[in-house]
This record gives sequence, C-alpha cells and structure tokens, in this order.
Amino acid sequence: MTENNLAERIASLHFLFNPRSIAIIGASQNPAKPSGQPLIALQKNNFLGKIYPVNPRYQELRGLKCYPTLKAIPDEVDMAIIAIEVSAVLEVLEECGQKGVKAVVVFTSGFAEVGGEGIELQKEMTRLAKEYKFRLLGPNCMGIFSSRNSLWADFPLMDAPEDILVPDYFGFVTQSGGFGCIFYDVVKAQRIGFSHFVSTGNEADIEFSEIIAYMAEDAYTRVIGGYMEGVKSGALFFQAAEKALEKEKPVILIKTGRYETAARAAASHTGAMVGSDKVYDAFFRQKGIIRVESIDELTALLLILAAGKIPRGNRVGILSASGGTGVLLADKCAEYGLEVVSLAKETQEKIKNLLPDFASYANPVDLTSAIVPEPGLLFECAHVVSTDPNIDVLLICFYNLGVNEAILNQIIKAAKTSAKTVVNIVWGDENVCQKQIRYLNDQFVPAVREMEVAVKALSSLIKYNSRRQMFLQEKPVSLVPLKAKEDVAAILAQIVPEAKLTEEEAKQILKTYDIPVAKEEVAASPEEAVAAAARIGYPVVLKILSPDILHKTEAGGVKLNLDTPEKVLVAYKEIITNASSYRTGARIKGVLVQEMLPAGVETIIGISQDPVFGPVVMFGLGGIFVEVLQDVALRVVPLTKSDAYEMIDEIKGRRILDGVRGQSPVNKSAIAEVILKVAQLAQDFPQIKELDINPLICSGKEVWAADALIVLR
Amino acid sequence: MTENNLAERIASLHFLFNPRSIAIIGASQNPAKPSGQPLIALQKNNFLGKIYPVNPRYQELRGLKCYPTLKAIPDEVDMAIIAIEVSAVLEVLEECGQKGVKAVVVFTSGFAEVGGEGIELQKEMTRLAKEYKFRLLGPNCMGIFSSRNSLWADFPLMDAPEDILVPDYFGFVTQSGGFGCIFYDVVKAQRIGFSHFVSTGNEADIEFSEIIAYMAEDAYTRVIGGYMEGVKSGALFFQAAEKALEKEKPVILIKTGRYETAARAAASHTGAMVGSDKVYDAFFRQKGIIRVESIDELTALLLILAAGKIPRGNRVGILSASGGTGVLLADKCAEYGLEVVSLAKETQEKIKNLLPDFASYANPVDLTSAIVPEPGLLFECAHVVSTDPNIDVLLICFYNLGVNEAILNQIIKAAKTSAKTVVNIVWGDENVCQKQIRYLNDQFVPAVREMEVAVKALSSLIKYNSRRQMFLQEKPVSLVPLKAKEDVAAILAQIVPEAKLTEEEAKQILKTYDIPVAKEEVAASPEEAVAAAARIGYPVVLKILSPDILHKTEAGGVKLNLDTPEKVLVAYKEIITNASSYRTGARIKGVLVQEMLPAGVETIIGISQDPVFGPVVMFGLGGIFVEVLQDVALRVVPLTKSDAYEMIDEIKGRRILDGVRGQSPVNKSAIAEVILKVAQLAQDFPQIKELDINPLICSGKEVWAADALIVLR
Repeated sequence: MTENNLAERIASLHFLFNPRSIAIIGASQNPAKPSGQPLIALQKNNFLGKIYPVNPRYQELRGLKCYPTLKAIPDEVDMAIIAIEVSAVLEVLEECGQKGVKAVVVFTSGFAEVGGEGIELQKEMTRLAKEYKFRLLGPNCMGIFSSRNSLWADFPLMDAPEDILVPDYFGFVTQSGGFGCIFYDVVKAQRIGFSHFVSTGNEADIEFSEIIAYMAEDAYTRVIGGYMEGVKSGALFFQAAEKALEKEKPVILIKTGRYETAARAAASHTGAMVGSDKVYDAFFRQKGIIRVESIDELTALLLILAAGKIPRGNRVGILSASGGTGVLLADKCAEYGLEVVSLAKETQEKIKNLLPDFASYANPVDLTSAIVPEPGLLFECAHVVSTDPNIDVLLICFYNLGVNEAILNQIIKAAKTSAKTVVNIVWGDENVCQKQIRYLNDQFVPAVREMEVAVKALSSLIKYNSRRQMFLQEKPVSLVPLKAKEDVAAILAQIVPEAKLTEEEAKQILKTYDIPVAKEEVAASPEEAVAAAARIGYPVVLKILSPDILHKTEAGGVKLNLDTPEKVLVAYKEIITNASSYRTGARIKGVLVQEMLPAGVETIIGISQDPVFGPVVMFGLGGIFVEVLQDVALRVVPLTKSDAYEMIDEIKGRRILDGVRGQSPVNKSAIAEVILKVAQLAQDFPQIKELDINPLICSGKEVWAADALIVLR
Repeated sequence: MTENNLAERIASLHFLFNPRSIAIIGASQNPAKPSGQPLIALQKNNFLGKIYPVNPRYQELRGLKCYPTLKAIPDEVDMAIIAIEVSAVLEVLEECGQKGVKAVVVFTSGFAEVGGEGIELQKEMTRLAKEYKFRLLGPNCMGIFSSRNSLWADFPLMDAPEDILVPDYFGFVTQSGGFGCIFYDVVKAQRIGFSHFVSTGNEADIEFSEIIAYMAEDAYTRVIGGYMEGVKSGALFFQAAEKALEKEKPVILIKTGRYETAARAAASHTGAMVGSDKVYDAFFRQKGIIRVESIDELTALLLILAAGKIPRGNRVGILSASGGTGVLLADKCAEYGLEVVSLAKETQEKIKNLLPDFASYANPVDLTSAIVPEPGLLFECAHVVSTDPNIDVLLICFYNLGVNEAILNQIIKAAKTSAKTVVNIVWGDENVCQKQIRYLNDQFVPAVREMEVAVKALSSLIKYNSRRQMFLQEKPVSLVPLKAKEDVAAILAQIVPEAKLTEEEAKQILKTYDIPVAKEEVAASPEEAVAAAARIGYPVVLKILSPDILHKTEAGGVKLNLDTPEKVLVAYKEIITNASSYRTGARIKGVLVQEMLPAGVETIIGISQDPVFGPVVMFGLGGIFVEVLQDVALRVVPLTKSDAYEMIDEIKGRRILDGVRGQSPVNKSAIAEVILKVAQLAQDFPQIKELDINPLICSGKEVWAADALIVLR
C-alpha cells in the first residue's frame, strides 16, 4: 500500500466496517468489563456475522462455543477484538497475522500513551500490522460501532438507540474514547442516528484521517464528525478532507489545543503528534472543515443539516416577536458575517398588509403579539419573507408562546414549504423551550435556544458551501513551466544541504519562477558598485551580501536612495565596515546594488515547514504587523487560486492593501500570483526549509521582491 | 432637583417603588387588556396599599368602588397608572399634578416612538412632570413590579412566582417591555426571585440609569440586570454605575447595537439616543459593568452570584471526567484569560494517592471513572483541589453520571465546604443533564451545560471583582495645579468658538498642563528659522503653521532632520511653496522650528466628544495602527490612574510598547500621566471639542508631544 493511494487505504478498511466473522480474544462473562461487553452487544443487537469467543478458561460463553485460541477456530476470521492484558498482545497479533485476520481492534492499554517500553511495544505492533497486511484499530481504543451491520465491536456502547429520526446519518471518529461517549449520548438525545462510531486510540496503524476518508466514500454517512487532538500525517488529512468536500459530506471537528497550555495537555493525552494549532485552523478553513467548540454548536449544525437545506448565501431575513430581540439577533448576524438585508419592496408591502400598524416591516420584522390570536398569520409572514429573492436564510425568534401547537405547526409548514434554510430561536422559560424545541426538531425544523449558536452554525455552513463550490469549480493550475523547475533544480543541486542561500541566489530562484524581482547586480568593490548603479539607473539601494548576516538592516548593511556615484562610494565602504563589526568573521561576498523601488505597501510571503502538514505558505503585511500582531494568513501547500485570494483578504490589516492615506489600492492579483508561485516552489522542492520574500513591495500595478531569503534543509 | 444630585434623584423615586395608594386610570374589566391587568394582579397578590380604579363607565370594579375621575378620589394618591388612549393622556397628567400624585406609570403608546406629533406630546409630558414634580415612568412602558410590596403596577406580569429559592434577589430594568418579559421567565425558571422589574419605555422622565441607581441603594436587591438600547445622559449613567460599584451590586447588562445596522434598528425601536457602541463598551469596562450577550451567560452569572462567592483571582483548578474534556476546558480557560495553574506539590501528592494509576494528577486532573464506584472519592478530590492555595476557582466537568444523587451530593458538599467559587459543567444526554443541573442549582451549586458559558461568566466576575477593588482603593487625584487651569482658561478666552488652534497655541496649552512638548519656536522668515534652529540646537524639524492645514505631511509641510543652516533655509522656502499650492488662500502664520526628537514609539492621545458620554479620551499607537486597525482604547472622562494604565495595556499592539526589534520598553507611567492630564483638560474645559497629540513620541525614559491639534466648539 503506497502512502498516497487513498483509494487503497479506504478499501483496506472494508473488513473493519464489514466483518463477516469476529473473534473476541479474551472474551469474559463479566458484563462490566470491556472484555465482556462486545459479545453481549453483538448478540443483543443481532449482528449478522459469526461470533467466536476466545478464552481458554471457558468451554462456552453466552450460548456460543468458546475457543481456547484463535488458531482453534475452524473458519475464516475477518475481525479480531483483543481485550487481553498488555503482555500477551503482541503474541496474539502474530497469531492474527498467521490466521489471515483482516481487521484487529485492540482495546488493551499500556502502549505509547504510558511512554517508555510502551512506545517500543506499539512500534512492534505497527510492524506486525504492516508485515501481515491486516489493519489495526487502537491500541487503547474503545473500538468501533457501525449501525447497518449491527457491528458492536466496542466496549462502552451497547444499546441500539431507539426513536431515531435520521438513521445512519452521522459518522463520528474520536481520538478520545471518553469524549466520544459523551458525544454519542448528546447526539442520540437529538434523535440523530450514527452510521459509524470509531475510537482510534493510539493509532498504531489506522489513522483518524483514514476513517474520515472511509466515511466520505460510505454510501450512508451524510455528515462526518470528529474529536481530534492531532493527526500524524498532514498529507493524508489533506486527501481525506478533499474527498469529503468532493462527496459533499460536511466535516465537523472538535479540536483541542488551540492554546499552548491545552496543547501540552493534549500531547500528553495521546500519542498523536500535535502541530501548530494555527496551521490546523488555517487548514480547516482551506478545506471547508467546520471547527466547533461546543456541544450546542455541533447539535445545531446536525439539526440544520438534517433538514437538508444548506444555506446558499449569507443574506438573512429575521422575524422576531419583539423589537429588542430582533435587534439583538441582527447584532449577532453582523458579528458572524451574515447580512441582514433590506427586504424587497413587494415583501415589505405584503408584510405591511399582514401586520398591525405598530409592527416593524423592515428587516428585522417585528411580528408583535398579533401572531397569537390570528390563525395562520405567522405562516403568512414567514412564507412571504422566506420567498423574498433577497434572502437566503430565514431566522425566526419567538418566545412565551408555550407549546402552542397551532403556532408551532405554522412554523413547521413555513419551513417545509420553503426551499431556504429556516432556523428557529426559542426564548423563554427553559422547561417550556425544551418542549418547543423538541416539537420542532422532531419535524426536522431546526430550533435552538441561543442566538449565537444558530448564527454561528449558519455562518459555518455558508462558508462550507462557498468553499465547496470553489473546490468543484477550480482546476489545479500550473503557473510555472517545466523548464523553470529544471532550472531551479540545477541551481539547488549546486548548494549543500542546510545552507542559507545568498540574497542573489535566492532571487535567482524567484526570477526563474517568474516572480518579479528588483533589478540588481552584485558588486565586489566600490568601483563595481558605481558601475552597476549606472547600468541599473539612479537612485539605487546598497545591501550587504553575506550568508552569515540574516538581518541586514540591524547590521547597518542597507543604504537607501543613493542618487549619485559619490554616495554609492561612501555607502559601500560604510556597509562593509558595519557588517564586519556586526559579526566578526562574517563571510562577505560583496554588496548588492539594487534599483530603488517606488514607495508601496510592504508585504511578506514565506514558506515554513510544519511538522504535521509540511510546507505552509504565509502571507502578511511587512514589518510590525507580522512581528507584533501576528497578523498573517497561512495555507497548506498545494494551494488553489482562491486560497491565494482568501489569504490576502484574511489579514486584519487588509484595508492597507485597499489604499489608505490617499494611496491607490495594490494589485491583488499580482500578489496572488506570487503566493501561488511560492507555493509551487515549496511543492516542487521539499528541500526548501524556509523561504521569505520580505518585503514584497506592492504598488497599484506591480509587485517586486525586494529581498529574499532561502534556507535549505 | 439638580441634574447631578443622584441622592435626590434616588429619593424622588421612593413612591414609584413604595406607593401607599394607587389609582388605575382607565381600569377595565377585560383581563386580556393592559388596562384590566394591574387591578387583577394587585388584588391577587395582596398589595398592601389602597387601590382606586378610575373609569366613568363603571360604578364598581372587582369589588372596589370605581371613580369617574382622579379628582373624585377622596384620599391621597401616591401612584397613578395610566391606561387610556393617547389623546386623553396629557389632560389626565395635568389632573395628576393637581391631585399631588407622586409617581405616574404610563402604559399608553403613541408618543416619541411613532415620531411626528408623538414627539411633541412627549415633550409636553416631560414638562408636566417637571412642573408638578411628579416622576413619570413611560410612556409606552409595561410598568413596574416590586416584590416586597406586592406592587404589580404592570401589565404583562400577573403571577407571583412560586418555588423561588432566592427571593428579592435580582433587580431588572428594561428599555424593551417584550424583551424584559422573556428575561422575567428565563430567570424565574432558574428559581431566582426579582426584587424589582421596571420597564422604562420611552423615558420621558425617569431614565434607565436612575433605576440602576435606585436598585444599587435598595437594601434587598443583590444583583442588578438590564436590557438597554442606550441612555440619554452619560453623566447620570456614570454616577449610577459608580453607586453600584460602591454598594457591591454587580450590574449585568444586555445592550444592543454593537454593530452599525443593529444600532440603526435600535435607534428606531425606542426614542433613546444611541451613542457609539465602542464608547459604551469602553465605559462598561471602566466601571465594571458586565456585558452579556446570551441568556445562558446571564443565568450562569446569576447562579454563581447566588452562591455568594465571587472569584478573587483567575487561577483555575480543573477536575474532569476524561482527558479530552479537561483539555478542551483548559483551552476555553486560556481563551478567556483564566490561568490553569500548576497545583501545589502537596495537592498533587494527595490526588495521586486518591486516584488510580492511569489518572492524570496535573491540572486538569483526570478523575477517570474511578469516582463512580468509590464512595466519597469525588468529594475528596474536589476538596483537595479547592483547598490548594494556588487556585481561586474550581471547575468540575463530568458526564454520564445520570442523576446519581450520591455523586451529586459529593459535589454539593465540596462546594458548600469550600470558600472558593466552584462551578460545574455537566455534559451528556440533554434530558439527563437538565435534571443534574437542576439538582445542583437548587442547592446553590452553580451548574451549566456549556464550558464557554461557565468560563465566560467566571472571567466577567473576576474582572468585576478586580475593578471593584480598584474603585475602592483609588482616590481621585489632581495632577494639575489650579494655577494651570487659570492660565489655560486665559488662553482659551482669547480664542473664538469653533476655532482650530494653531499647533503653537495647542502646545502652549499642553505645556501649561505640564505635558512635555518638543522644544520649538515660530519663525516668520527663512532667517528667523535659522536663528531659531541655532537656539534649539541642530538637527531640527520644520513644520508649516497654518490654521487651514490640518494634515501637514500630506501638504508637504514637514521637513525632518535638517542639520545645517543651509538645509533650514531651503526647507523653509519649500514648505511655504508646498503649503500654498496644497490649499490656495490658506492662512500661513509661518513655520515651526522644532527639536528633532530621538526615535521612539509613536502613540496618539486624544479627546473626542461622544453625544451621550461627553468627553472621551483615546489612546493608541500612531499611524496605521489607529487608522487601519482601529486599535484604540477609550475611556469616559473623568479617569482614574488605573483607567490610564488599563488603556495602555488594552491595545492589541501593546507589545510594541514593551520593546520590539531590540528597542527598550517605553516608559508607561510617563504615558499614563499624559493620558490623565489630557483627561483633566477635557474635564476642565468642556469647550474643547477635539484634541489630538499625534504623535506622542515615547522613549525608554521620556515622552514628547511632537504635534498637537485642538478644536473648540
């Protein structure tokens, strides 16, 4: 199985989800123990395949013949559940391999998560899985539940949920068993059914991303969820995320470690390697993964998705039962980028005819209490607003209606007859609210208690939808001809690993990829500098050229705006003196004579290496913006064109690019092109460890790389 | 009654809250109408005073004699409720005045909120209240409910709540009646009792802030809440907020209009004048007002406050039922500035002895499922952590316990025996959670469903507490001698209203208030400029001096770093030419010759006038930080010393002040002193409409106002 073949990886998981026979190694009759639970659950829920308990202590277990060893089972075994003590696990895995078992689920703990010898044991486990070509879930996991097959190969979950409205709907994968169990309960309470529930434990073999990819391909799963602390391979996660986008399966993740202290705790909690949370966060945005941070947010998303109407845009109509609530809701919409637009003239007229004089017909529409006595009025208003071509989403916020079925049914009718997303916010006495919410949700009309939850969920889905549309429309582009790649390869072949390239070398590489670079020449003497300046044209800039000096300005190694030969002569000498005293013994290769570029906005474009995701492209404004405010946009390589444009729009200081203080706006497509070419460089040459174009000077028409740094690994 | 006498204002509200007799003008027998409800509610809930229905159509109403007019009532009337049509209201108010009524509650709508003639009617209403010295609540309000007197002088609320755990606890004032009703229900469902509930309507007379102040003084109210769209007088709000701080009554407000569109809707919803939301937000911070945005947040705050233990610091201990939840909770704590600290060695040892091997003893403490079978174990762990001197707050997050009273009672015991704030987060099946939460909350042990809600509420209370401590410790300081005030008054007396002062005049004022200003002289010719430069010392800066040119750099009116007499001569001429061509006819008073200041961090300190709050002081970093990122801190005048320091720490770019790129940190106390003196100027001279010190150059030791602008009104 090659690292990169996702289809093969997905196929290899077939027997994890669809075993025809299961051996439970270490099966016990204690229903309170992990070793006792799968047999009970599989029997109770009528697993359709064969079950073979394995335990030398029993002849028979719950009416089934119990085998002393795996070997003793006369038939083929697709899956083995291992619930024995840690010291015996490796031996049994060897037996699994010999028996031709295709999927192994290891409940047992005591591996990488305890450190020391456990890490070695786990490595051996990984090796065995590779050698015998079986797939292994765990160790230290809670197993797998899969609803269509009644596959209860897990220990905490034992009862098929009742009263499920949407069966086989939600596929969930978790890196924390305990956490997964909570979510199982939370989601079940909303009457939403699971297609699969997978606890990946230490991930000695099967990774989080593979489960995501499997569920993306799976015919039943409609929404994918997960609790993650970190993935091992960013590349695999990248592929899985694109598979989910392609198949229109929204991925909703809870990821810990947003803050450093928490990240430390997460790293100690499992064996997963945790990269920078900022890169994860950027990646989620890049691939339309919805990151949630609360239970309510997750359930709201599931409820809206279960209704089957993902909002197609961000224009919101609001119906509220009081002016104040409407305003508060409009506030929330603004906070999350939803637009409370003007209703069409015609809509306003219709609403005016429907509602009493003291109501408000603008958006938010203030329904007043008139809807209570007047049968059908709420439906009429909701219908009129939801069919307004100006709006994509209808938000209804009401309260103090009690569980008034006549009213609630109007909302249900309006939602059912509308092609648009309708979400309800229900305020008031908590006990009454819960009943109203249940009544609506049971009819697939999403209802929640908090404005923020509704608005945040909608905002996430709108972004998901727009990201998916872009994904479907965008074809990968190559901005760089093959010849350029060969030329850069030839340059890099001359340079030893881990070297810092000179500015000249770095710029040569940029130029080869057709990234605009300021005109420049190297001068090894004051006289050469003057000659170069004449060729380039005055005024010029002089910069020290030394592989040992990274921060040139700090070293006094930069002189700007030199407009005469005399000034160039003086500057040359000063720079050499400054550089030598800044760092004794620094290798000085001369001075770079450069055209003095027009004033423009200074930006930075760079590459760095993330331990999980590999090359990451960074864009930001130059100077203090990056250093102090960390106002940068990140994307994982490879990038699409819209990724590049999104990066430019994402930074907080973006208004500077639109022109402040009378400056003209910069040429964003020129910047986007440089971002894409830099990303291409990172992709083509994994040996580039760091790259910095700082600054990229951006004017209204052109951009120029004024300085460049490349470090190899 | 003077504008500023808060005590008088509070006293004048006595009969609004404590009427001995009430006339209901327009009383009807229809229980569905506002005019029918107060009588029913007052009778049902045994109002202790006298009730006089007034309506010429009835002889008798609900067993009480009904009077044809107010005048016809033989006794004194403290309060009149007016529930008649709009056209008759003014006449009745006149009667109220003549009868000596002390408090009037006007339900009737159709005043300022409808615009046009309604505005005039309301003005007349205000005039009548002033003339006859009665206080008037409304119009367009829902009235007042006050629990100790069974005063139900309102129309939507009619039933005394049952099962209240904390009676007379929460005082609520609302600018939206409908909104208020929701909150009444929400809070009641938490078994928390209201001391007072006041709907202020259009505020023709009684303002939102007065009700806050009254409740701050009130012996029963322990927490004050409100829904506001805006206040009329910032000064009154300022006083009320300080009164509440003084009396240790936390004020929790929901304010709409955070975003511009919503602000527009809010302004149309009531007649209240809406200032900039940013100033409100700054003011809330300044005076420890807690701004909430959701129902859950408000109830969480009330529950924590009802338990009576406001957290004294931000150091948190976490007990969680799984590693994953602990990490997620630690993430949330970090987001809201709570510190998940290391537990004391001793605490860690104790926990280690209590819990099984695979648990985590660090903070977060991972309890594992060991707490379920082991009686008293959860209490022991909670007790050990909550008594750790390193922590101020204990957060417990558990799930899947069912309504296990044995377990819940341990949490209750731990909370009750701890001097510290203990808050529970309960996860899992919603229906089960609700029961657990109710069980805990009924014992005054705060419990909520979402981590964010708990952490945000705690963070708000920690800030409230620290703000209150500062308030109690800080004495007002005057940094400026009386003589300086007289001198500035003399300068300003020379200048016509609405004038823009020259830089020289502006700086003279700053100097008089002992704000450091760069050395400078005015020159009216190139020769004078050279002479001035000699006195000041080279290098110097030249700047155009013209009341018609505000943006000097843009006008080509600034030349820096001139180090010879020749350069000064040339620069002078250039500046004059540039300025004349930049704005034809500009009055040019010469050129300012200024010492060239050392490099430093450029900051801005300014004053602007808010329509509600009056003078507001602004602090920010110079240049693009203010313009593009709007990264500024605001405070309403007058300021305390800690306000000034908080402003400096509040800006996002504050790291720049701590020294970046090898620069030394700036002298923050020097900046704070300038902020305070500028605030003093704003307070002493209301005629200053705008003031800008831009830049204030800040070095490691000193600060200098390098440019200054003052505009009068």
